[in-house]
Amino acid sequence: MSLLTVGTVAFDTIETPFGRAERVIGGACTYISWSASYFTNDIHLVSIVGDDFPDSELKRLVERGVNLEGLKIIQGGKSFFWEGRYHNNMNSRDTLVTDLNVLADFDPILPEKAKSCKYVMLGNLTPAIQRSVLDQLDGTQKLIALDTMNFWMDIAMDELKEVISRIDLLTINDEEARQLSGEHSLVNAAKVIHQMGPEYLVIKKGEHGALLFCDEDIFYAPALPLAQVFDPTGAGDTFAGGLMGYLAKTDDTSMENMKRAIIAGSAMASYCVEDFSLNRLQNLSMPEINGRLERFKKLMHFDLI
Amino acid sequence: MSLLTVGTVAFDTIETPFGRAERVIGGACTYISWSASYFTNDIHLVSIVGDDFPDSELKRLVERGVNLEGLKIIQGGKSFFWEGRYHNNMNSRDTLVTDLNVLADFDPILPEKAKSCKYVMLGNLTPAIQRSVLDQLDGTQKLIALDTMNFWMDIAMDELKEVISRIDLLTINDEEARQLSGEHSLVNAAKVIHQMGPEYLVIKKGEHGALLFCDEDIFYAPALPLAQVFDPTGAGDTFAGGLMGYLAKTDDTSMENMKRAIIAGSAMASYCVEDFSLNRLQNLSMPEINGRLERFKKLMHFDLI
Repeated sequence: MSLLTVGTVAFDTIETPFGRAERVIGGACTYISWSASYFTNDIHLVSIVGDDFPDSELKRLVERGVNLEGLKIIQGGKSFFWEGRYHNNMNSRDTLVTDLNVLADFDPILPEKAKSCKYVMLGNLTPAIQRSVLDQLDGTQKLIALDTMNFWMDIAMDELKEVISRIDLLTINDEEARQLSGEHSLVNAAKVIHQMGPEYLVIKKGEHGALLFCDEDIFYAPALPLAQVFDPTGAGDTFAGGLMGYLAKTDDTSMENMKRAIIAGSAMASYCVEDFSLNRLQNLSMPEINGRLERFKKLMHFDLI
Repeated sequence: MSLLTVGTVAFDTIETPFGRAERVIGGACTYISWSASYFTNDIHLVSIVGDDFPDSELKRLVERGVNLEGLKIIQGGKSFFWEGRYHNNMNSRDTLVTDLNVLADFDPILPEKAKSCKYVMLGNLTPAIQRSVLDQLDGTQKLIALDTMNFWMDIAMDELKEVISRIDLLTINDEEARQLSGEHSLVNAAKVIHQMGPEYLVIKKGEHGALLFCDEDIFYAPALPLAQVFDPTGAGDTFAGGLMGYLAKTDDTSMENMKRAIIAGSAMASYCVEDFSLNRLQNLSMPEINGRLERFKKLMHFDLI
């Protein structure tokens, strides 16, 4: 099935305790699309870049089955740029630079084919842009997922709630779930958020994994314990990309299949953090990915007697 | 199989955002023994109290199959007392009072039968007391587990390492695993700690669950997501008690059975936090416990296709 991905395509400069990466490829939509491309090659990307974004990188996306008809390239414009520095524990970071550049004027126009994609992943953007994408969809979608962050809860809560009411799956982190719902317990937060609209809620907890809520059902996917987390940038988007790619591949939105999709996303995220930028995600094989899925099985499986 | 539990039997005064409990029953050994008693009724408790500790509570332990021959009651003495206040997020707390009282002179003498218990749970105490217990065991044990804390790492690391070298299973939290090993990654920390002696390592992460390490194998048991955590006091000891009680019941220390034991411990801990003190642990039925084991299965189980 087809997958529409909307979000940033960008440059990042990243500093971690292990090193520094200068103006490397980043952006939510980039991570989402690369991660999903291991499961489906019918992806429509909608984003905006300047003419500073390398053709070679766009070509690689096309080779992965990503249709770039919806990627607007602004001649003379500069791509979105983010610079951040991770603290020693890798769980928190400081944003040093955010240059919106061409993103400041992003007004996504969906190509005809993108409007009927059966699966949609809206990366973290202003709620107004996310709404504009929803308005252009043809209504035949099977599942629409949305990622957002505390920043939009601070400055545009009403608009955010309106788009959240129109989607099927929301991905946020634990603190954002608390802020959005006003509830400290994640179980209670999930109840409140379900009432806002989404049938599925994924609460991301970084190194502690992710929780999937659907009605009274809860599923817990741990993060794979790793000897070294090299760079967490893009892990959440990679997770979402794997999740949505798996759903598009299997075309099954039942809770049982959603669990497998969450594990697929977790496996992809576990690769993402092993290196800077897309370095690891651009060099994976299906046997490697399947091997990691088996590791999750081993990590979580037990039999009651 | 028989289980020896060594640790504090005490009074606690606890303040949480939900209320205050004044001089209620507490102590690591109390929680461990109550929790284990749902799986085995051949428990030998070794501890010390003053004559202020209520006979009625001791009687209840005996009714649960806990042999109190090793409990020293000091006439005219006062039982160990701890007072703490939890912060709003329930993840951190301040210790307000620690009165060692009779615990200051605790020199455990194991009754004859306790020396040959096949399973041993050493609750958090000074490494010197833990060593004294190890010295009295008859060497026929199948598994010896030990709990400790950062305090002993700060002031008695060498003594602590010596006792750790003599046990089979160590339970500590994530920050303590980092301090003990000098490694930030828990995967690397586990490798270092295995080399110190213990075949099994359980790293407790509070609301984020627990990790079991054995050689290259890792198992992840989440904490059950709860609508309300009323009082976390004793959760770690209750977890250890369920784990060791399950092992004593099943007499199987394979990795596969250890996974079930960790889940049993997690289930017991999920009940412990539902109320102050032993209120919930003293009022459980096996159908309730089995129901919660099934909830863990549902929370974690998925099939790859």
